[in-house]
Amino acid sequence: MRIKPLGDRVVIRRLEAEETTKSGIVLPGTAKEKPQEAEVVAVGPGGVVDGKEIRMEVKAGDKVLFSKYAGTEVKIDGEEYTILRQDDILAIVE
Amino acid sequence: MRIKPLGDRVVIRRLEAEETTKSGIVLPGTAKEKPQEAEVVAVGPGGVVDGKEIRMEVKAGDKVLFSKYAGTEVKIDGEEYTILRQDDILAIVE
Amino acid sequence: MRIKPLGDRVVIRRLEAEETTKSGIVLPGTAKEKPQEAEVVAVGPGGVVDGKEIRMEVKAGDKVLFSKYAGTEVKIDGEEYTILRQDDILAIVE
Amino acid sequence: MRIKPLGDRVVIRRLEAEETTKSGIVLPGTAKEKPQEAEVVAVGPGGVVDGKEIRMEVKAGDKVLFSKYAGTEVKIDGEEYTILRQDDILAIVE
Amino acid sequence: MRIKPLGDRVVIRRLEAEETTKSGIVLPGTAKEKPQEAEVVAVGPGGVVDGKEIRMEVKAGDKVLFSKYAGTEVKIDGEEYTILRQDDILAIVE
Amino acid sequence: MRIKPLGDRVVIRRLEAEETTKSGIVLPGTAKEKPQEAEVVAVGPGGVVDGKEIRMEVKAGDKVLFSKYAGTEVKIDGEEYTILRQDDILAIVE
Amino acid sequence: MRIKPLGDRVVIRRLEAEETTKSGIVLPGTAKEKPQEAEVVAVGPGGVVDGKEIRMEVKAGDKVLFSKYAGTEVKIDGEEYTILRQDDILAIVE
Repeated sequence: MRIKPLGDRVVIRRLEAEETTKSGIVLPGTAKEKPQEAEVVAVGPGGVVDGKEIRMEVKAGDKVLFSKYAGTEVKIDGEEYTILRQDDILAIVE
Repeated sequence: MRIKPLGDRVVIRRLEAEETTKSGIVLPGTAKEKPQEAEVVAVGPGGVVDGKEIRMEVKAGDKVLFSKYAGTEVKIDGEEYTILRQDDILAIVE
Repeated sequence: MRIKPLGDRVVIRRLEAEETTKSGIVLPGTAKEKPQEAEVVAVGPGGVVDGKEIRMEVKAGDKVLFSKYAGTEVKIDGEEYTILRQDDILAIVE
Repeated sequence: MRIKPLGDRVVIRRLEAEETTKSGIVLPGTAKEKPQEAEVVAVGPGGVVDGKEIRMEVKAGDKVLFSKYAGTEVKIDGEEYTILRQDDILAIVE
Repeated sequence: MRIKPLGDRVVIRRLEAEETTKSGIVLPGTAKEKPQEAEVVAVGPGGVVDGKEIRMEVKAGDKVLFSKYAGTEVKIDGEEYTILRQDDILAIVE
Repeated sequence: MRIKPLGDRVVIRRLEAEETTKSGIVLPGTAKEKPQEAEVVAVGPGGVVDGKEIRMEVKAGDKVLFSKYAGTEVKIDGEEYTILRQDDILAIVE
Repeated sequence: MRIKPLGDRVVIRRLEAEETTKSGIVLPGTAKEKPQEAEVVAVGPGGVVDGKEIRMEVKAGDKVLFSKYAGTEVKIDGEEYTILRQDDILAIVE
C-alpha cells in the first residue's frame, strides 16, 4: 500500500456499479449520483486525535457507508480515493 | 442484518402510512411531508464517541421520533434507510 | 403517556387561549403570534447528555415559558407537541 | 413572584423613562431606542449549567445593564419581561 | 464609581483627542475613525467565568488598546462607556 | 533551513509535475488544478497546542497529501511554501 | 517599550521592503500585497489564557511569518503595529 493515513483518517475507494437502464443503455458511474458505498483501502493508527483517544473500528477490506460530502478526494497513481475521518463513516455493510 | 452502524449511530426506517383524503384519493407517502416517525433497524455499540462516553438508549424494533432534517439517507438493497446519531432521536413512542 | 423523551428532552404542549378582540371577534390561537407558554407533558431521564451530567428540573404538569423557536414540533395521535431540551425552557410559571 | 427562572437565567424588567423633547413633546418609551437598563425581578438557582458551576451574582431588585439583543421577551399577566442568562448581564449599576 | 462590572468584564472610556488638520480645521472626535485607545474605569472581580478561572490583569486608570468592534456601548449619566471582556483588551499602553 | 514553524505547524512545498497533453503541449503546473501532493520541508516541535498535547507524525522529506484549501502560502527567498497544521495533512505517501 | 500586550498577545511590526520592478520603478510597500513578514516588538506574559496554559515561544526581535488577516492593527505614536495572538504566528524566520 502506498498511502499511510495519519491519525483517525481512513482511505476509501468508492464502489461504483455499472447500471443498465431499461432501454439497455449502460450508464457509467460518473453519470449517476455519487455512490455512498466504499471499500476501505487503508486505516490510520488512531491514538490521540485533537485531544481525544480514538480507537479505529474499521479495517482494510471493510465495505462501508459514508457521509456523501465528507472527506477529500485525492488521485494516486491515476486512481481516485477519498480520505476522511473515521467519524464520517456511518456503518459497515456485511 | 446487513448494516452495522459505528459508534453512536442508529439506522432507522421511516414509517409511512398511506393516507386517504376526504375525496377518497390515496396519497402515497412521497406526496406528503416527510414523516418523523421511524422504526429502529440497527444500533451502534456506543462507547467513547468524540471523547464522550455514550450509552445507547434505543434498541432495534423501537418506534422513535427524530429531528426531521437529521442524518443521512442511504439505500441498501433497494430500500431506504436513515443513519443518524442517537442524539438526533427525540423520543421513543410506545 | 405514549411519548418517552430521551436524555434531557422534554415534551410540552403549547397553551393557547382563545382571545376576544374589542369588537367581539374571537381569534383562534393560530391567528396570533405563537404562544410561549406550555404545559410539560413528559420529561426525559436526564443523566449524562453530550458528556455533561444533566439533572431534570421540570416535571409533567409544570407550566413553563420556552424559547419561541426552540425544539421540534411533532404530531402524535393528531395532537401537536413540541420536543425540546430542558435548557430551552426559560422558567416555570406558578 | 410568579416566574421561577431555571438554571442561570434571570428575569428582568426594562426600565423606561418618559422623555420630553425640547419642543415639549413627550416621547413614550417605545419611540426611543430600547433601553439597556433593567431591574432584576427573579433569579434562577444557578448550579451546574451546561457542565459548568455557575454562582448567581445578581439578586432581585438590582439595577443592571445588559446586552441589548440578549434574551427572550415574554409577556406575563400583560407585563413584558426579558429572560436572559446571567452572563448577558454586563454590570450592576448602583 | 456607579458601574460594577460582572465576572471578567471591564468598563472603559474611549480616549478621543481633538485633531487639527493641516489647514487648521479642528475635527471633533466623532468625525474620525473610532479610537482604540481607552482608559479603564472599572474592573469586574474575575473568578470562574464560563467554567474557566480568570485573573484580572488590568486596573482602573490603565490606558489600554482594545479590539475596535468589541464590547457593548452604554450611556450612564449622559456619558458613553464601553463594557467588554478583559480578553478583548489587547495591551496596556504606558 | 531558514523557517522554524511554531507548535504543530508544518512547512511543505507543493510538488508540481510538468504534464504533457496528448497533443504534446506541455502544461506548466500553474495551468492545472492545484496539486495536493507536497514534500515536508520543516516541522514544528509539537507539544501543547491549544491545550492539547500534539505529537508530530511527519518529518522533513516525507511526501504527503494535504487538504487542498488548508494553510497559508508564504514566499521565502522567492520560493513558495505552504504552512499548515499537521492535522491538515491527510496521509504520507510512500 | 510603550505597549505591554496581555496574555498570549504579541505586538509585531510588518516588514516592508521597497521593491524595484524590472523597468526600474520603485513600488512603495503600500502598493503591493500586504507583507507577511514581521518583527516581534513585544510579547505578552502567556500563562493561562482561555483556560489553557500558554508558553510564549517568540521573543522581541524575532523575525516571524504570520497569518495575513490575523490580529488588529493599531497606531501608536504615529507608527503602525499589529497585535495578534501567538497562535497566529506561523513560523520564525532565521
